[in-house]
Amino acid sequence: MYSMNGKAVPGRFVSSYSEVQASRLDVPLPLPSVLKSSFSVVDGPKSSAAGNPEEIAKLFPNLFGQPSAMLRPGGSSVLSKDTSLKIGVVLSGGQAPGGHNVICGIFDYLQKHTSGSIMYGFKGGPAGIMKCKYVQLSAEFIYPYRNQGGFDMIASGRDKIETPEQFKLAEETVKKFDLDGLVVIGGDDSNTNACLLAEHFRGKNMKTQVIGCPKTIDGDLKSKEVPISFGFDTACKLYSEMIGNVMMDARSTGKYYHFVRLMGRAASHITLECALQTRPNITIIGEEVAAKKQTLKSVTDYITDIICKRSELGFNYGVILIPEGLIDFIPEVQQLISELNEILAHDIVDEAGVWKQKLQSQSLELFEFLPQTIQEQLLLERDPHGNVQVAKIETEKMLLQMVETELHKRKQEGTYMRDFAGKTHFFGYEGRCGLPTNFDANYCYALGYGAGALLHSGKTGLISSVGNLAAPVEQWTVGGTALTSLMDVERRHGKFKPVIKKAMVELEGAPFKKFASFRDEWALKNRYVNPGPIQFIGSAANTINNTLLLELGAQA
Amino acid sequence: MYSMNGKAVPGRFVSSYSEVQASRLDVPLPLPSVLKSSFSVVDGPKSSAAGNPEEIAKLFPNLFGQPSAMLRPGGSSVLSKDTSLKIGVVLSGGQAPGGHNVICGIFDYLQKHTSGSIMYGFKGGPAGIMKCKYVQLSAEFIYPYRNQGGFDMIASGRDKIETPEQFKLAEETVKKFDLDGLVVIGGDDSNTNACLLAEHFRGKNMKTQVIGCPKTIDGDLKSKEVPISFGFDTACKLYSEMIGNVMMDARSTGKYYHFVRLMGRAASHITLECALQTRPNITIIGEEVAAKKQTLKSVTDYITDIICKRSELGFNYGVILIPEGLIDFIPEVQQLISELNEILAHDIVDEAGVWKQKLQSQSLELFEFLPQTIQEQLLLERDPHGNVQVAKIETEKMLLQMVETELHKRKQEGTYMRDFAGKTHFFGYEGRCGLPTNFDANYCYALGYGAGALLHSGKTGLISSVGNLAAPVEQWTVGGTALTSLMDVERRHGKFKPVIKKAMVELEGAPFKKFASFRDEWALKNRYVNPGPIQFIGSAANTINNTLLLELGAQA
Repeated sequence: MYSMNGKAVPGRFVSSYSEVQASRLDVPLPLPSVLKSSFSVVDGPKSSAAGNPEEIAKLFPNLFGQPSAMLRPGGSSVLSKDTSLKIGVVLSGGQAPGGHNVICGIFDYLQKHTSGSIMYGFKGGPAGIMKCKYVQLSAEFIYPYRNQGGFDMIASGRDKIETPEQFKLAEETVKKFDLDGLVVIGGDDSNTNACLLAEHFRGKNMKTQVIGCPKTIDGDLKSKEVPISFGFDTACKLYSEMIGNVMMDARSTGKYYHFVRLMGRAASHITLECALQTRPNITIIGEEVAAKKQTLKSVTDYITDIICKRSELGFNYGVILIPEGLIDFIPEVQQLISELNEILAHDIVDEAGVWKQKLQSQSLELFEFLPQTIQEQLLLERDPHGNVQVAKIETEKMLLQMVETELHKRKQEGTYMRDFAGKTHFFGYEGRCGLPTNFDANYCYALGYGAGALLHSGKTGLISSVGNLAAPVEQWTVGGTALTSLMDVERRHGKFKPVIKKAMVELEGAPFKKFASFRDEWALKNRYVNPGPIQFIGSAANTINNTLLLELGAQA
Repeated sequence: MYSMNGKAVPGRFVSSYSEVQASRLDVPLPLPSVLKSSFSVVDGPKSSAAGNPEEIAKLFPNLFGQPSAMLRPGGSSVLSKDTSLKIGVVLSGGQAPGGHNVICGIFDYLQKHTSGSIMYGFKGGPAGIMKCKYVQLSAEFIYPYRNQGGFDMIASGRDKIETPEQFKLAEETVKKFDLDGLVVIGGDDSNTNACLLAEHFRGKNMKTQVIGCPKTIDGDLKSKEVPISFGFDTACKLYSEMIGNVMMDARSTGKYYHFVRLMGRAASHITLECALQTRPNITIIGEEVAAKKQTLKSVTDYITDIICKRSELGFNYGVILIPEGLIDFIPEVQQLISELNEILAHDIVDEAGVWKQKLQSQSLELFEFLPQTIQEQLLLERDPHGNVQVAKIETEKMLLQMVETELHKRKQEGTYMRDFAGKTHFFGYEGRCGLPTNFDANYCYALGYGAGALLHSGKTGLISSVGNLAAPVEQWTVGGTALTSLMDVERRHGKFKPVIKKAMVELEGAPFKKFASFRDEWALKNRYVNPGPIQFIGSAANTINNTLLLELGAQA
């Protein structure tokens, strides 16, 4: 029992809920109309792969080519309610708001459409499958997690099921529980893993089906049939709330430039979406930096130029958004880091700097251009393998220092007259576990409910796919996309490895083009928008993120 | 004209509003019932000072001893609607959510209860008064700022009106505009300044009255009659939203300790309130550290001990709240910094460390105990006067490193077995400019409306005071408290200076006692509460912060 608003509510642990948490618990979750009455599961045409289909076919001999599936109202092949299923579910990788609702969706589907089904939650990610750490899910157990953030119902983990021994362990677990199905809620890697598991079980003539669900706040797991990954909407709105507040602060104070780094290591979708929501003065998009082969110096100059122009207009403040993964997009930085890794592994870094002679001239120039604190970070903070820890580099502080240096130079030259003061922020962890927006809550519930239907109809190797998301929930489509159709191969250590390629920001895509068409205006004029806190009730509660709306519009 | 939700709305600049911003604009602001029909202003008994009344009497010969005022329904001295007033308003110091609503409250009062009044906003803080930078406020001008965050309507600034020349400039401006009144919206210093202005004008037989309004997110401007400063409620809820999310993340991931530093330089009210809202494992309250004469080592040990105990219980994660001003509360750190300032001003810091011999033994020991990066910060980051920049020290990183070092030692000793990973956060600027909560929106509107009434009734040298805040808005009391009654003196450069003493966290007060009675439980069990995003509609929209409720309860 745990207390909630003074009421005692059945639950697994003693805890308390805030007013907002409690207010979300009993909010009814709407379903797409196709899931509300009898439906049949209709197969589409034979599928291929995102790339190298012949290699994918070899890697997935049992699954390759299978069609995607779509739920249609009515039809002849209505599923039997007498079926009793044993289903496992696992959360894999970093948190994303809405994960609990996927689990609630699967559970509610089984309750409604099958009889006597049993559901297990594997604890702590894929390791829970291998180590057979689990909990049997009941209505009472999952109730306190409805519409709540976090992955704490069964927790998550980053382990992968990769080696033959690990596959064997997974096989033993699903056999032990006599599982009919397993739902893997995760990102690109986890869904690749889900597909390998599905292939493995199918290859061994085991009955266990595997269905994936698209999860990642980064928004880089998407395709034509999977329009968005869950969590992206909530995370971007949370970050945008903070950015909007910082903008109001910048404009009110009139004396600070705020350098805001945003989570999202590989792709810059989060940064782009937050820019569309808040209209900052400067936004750096990693994919554009890479496409234009920009250097750290040219990025610095771009920022500095705008700061100088703004100072001429009387604006001595501003907001700058930077994607976490920026330096991964800059070839010269990658080159420097790889040379440093080599040097640090074999040589002594002497104080006099003789070691620097080992750097190529371009890398040496870049190293000398970096602020001292960043130089030290590169030399000192190494992982157990001796490699530079790129993820630990505080890009926002690095850029701030480089801009300061450049402005100082321009001040000496007389081309910049004002005083400059910068503040840095990193918005990351606070966005991964917020209470899901209405959109993410509903989307996740539909993804889970649909996954239940796919399992019920005997499907495996599909990723739950809910579409037509710009329409009201009633009109959403529900189906499953062949995971092999999303795959390509990468060559690693001489072997082909299947991968779901991360969807990067497309410079020809509608979201980037909209941003690009406004950024010059946003740079010099102040078009700040403050999205405010996420609302669950009222007119402001049902907005959908720009990226999704623009991409759906572009497809139409 | 600027667009808003597609609608064109009159306004000063071209901009756009988010759905949430737009939804807040037309929300009606409720008034305490005393302000809704005719009222009279009733004086209380003669007042004194918070300390050294004889010195305050000398500093404020015209104002000292004046009574506080209270608005009462009806009565004989109903104010004339024919009066026409010229009123100035200024925002002083750091932003706090709700400032715009104070201005709206004054404006609406003048519209409703006087005729032909004119209101000026002085731009950029007190400097706007001295430099005569202003804007005349109209209904159209202020409309877009209703219920919005930030201070951008007229911006703010940190200048003070201190020297005789500055008083002269202020005098010229109020004469030029023929001001009947001036409302100063600010913190302890700004309200002290407001009182000095009121005294100055009264002493010169000028008609200009001055009324203060209690503003600061830090929550350290309060007294019996001023139960809370505005902005504290919103800022604490914003920080608590983020802390709650980080807690969900900690519990879901199960492998990180999050060290969260919270804004609030002088007092630890924000940290205490956030702890009451979210129930973290560890919370450091500066006032307690000072009262117990704790050292940096003992604070580190306190944190490390809990981490070790938690690891024995299987919890390898947690959340730790740290007030921004922590090191100001630790005497040994103050001592070290003062010695460093002395040494850095006169001696060369040699690499061999000979300079350290100048440190007293306790300071040397502390210096050697500090992480290297903090040592460097202390030596390198100095302000233009050569002093150590205490504010720049990232306390959360410092504590994290010291805890890491201590855990490493215990691991070697075999008393701690787990791996430790920490993440640091600073929640500050993003809390100062959020959209005000319903509480702050209503409170500010009442403060402003009340300030209008005080000016209308001829009062000066009072701070607008709204009370009975735990009751519905209808039942709130409205009045003004003699600013001199809040004052004490400090001796600076041999002279007595009037000050409104900052209200620190009281270790015998109800908020701290509640926290203290639960913290051992929160440390070892996980009682996390996630307050979620601030809501403006629904059951969760009208919660009031714990500090206020507990203090009001304690008074009752």
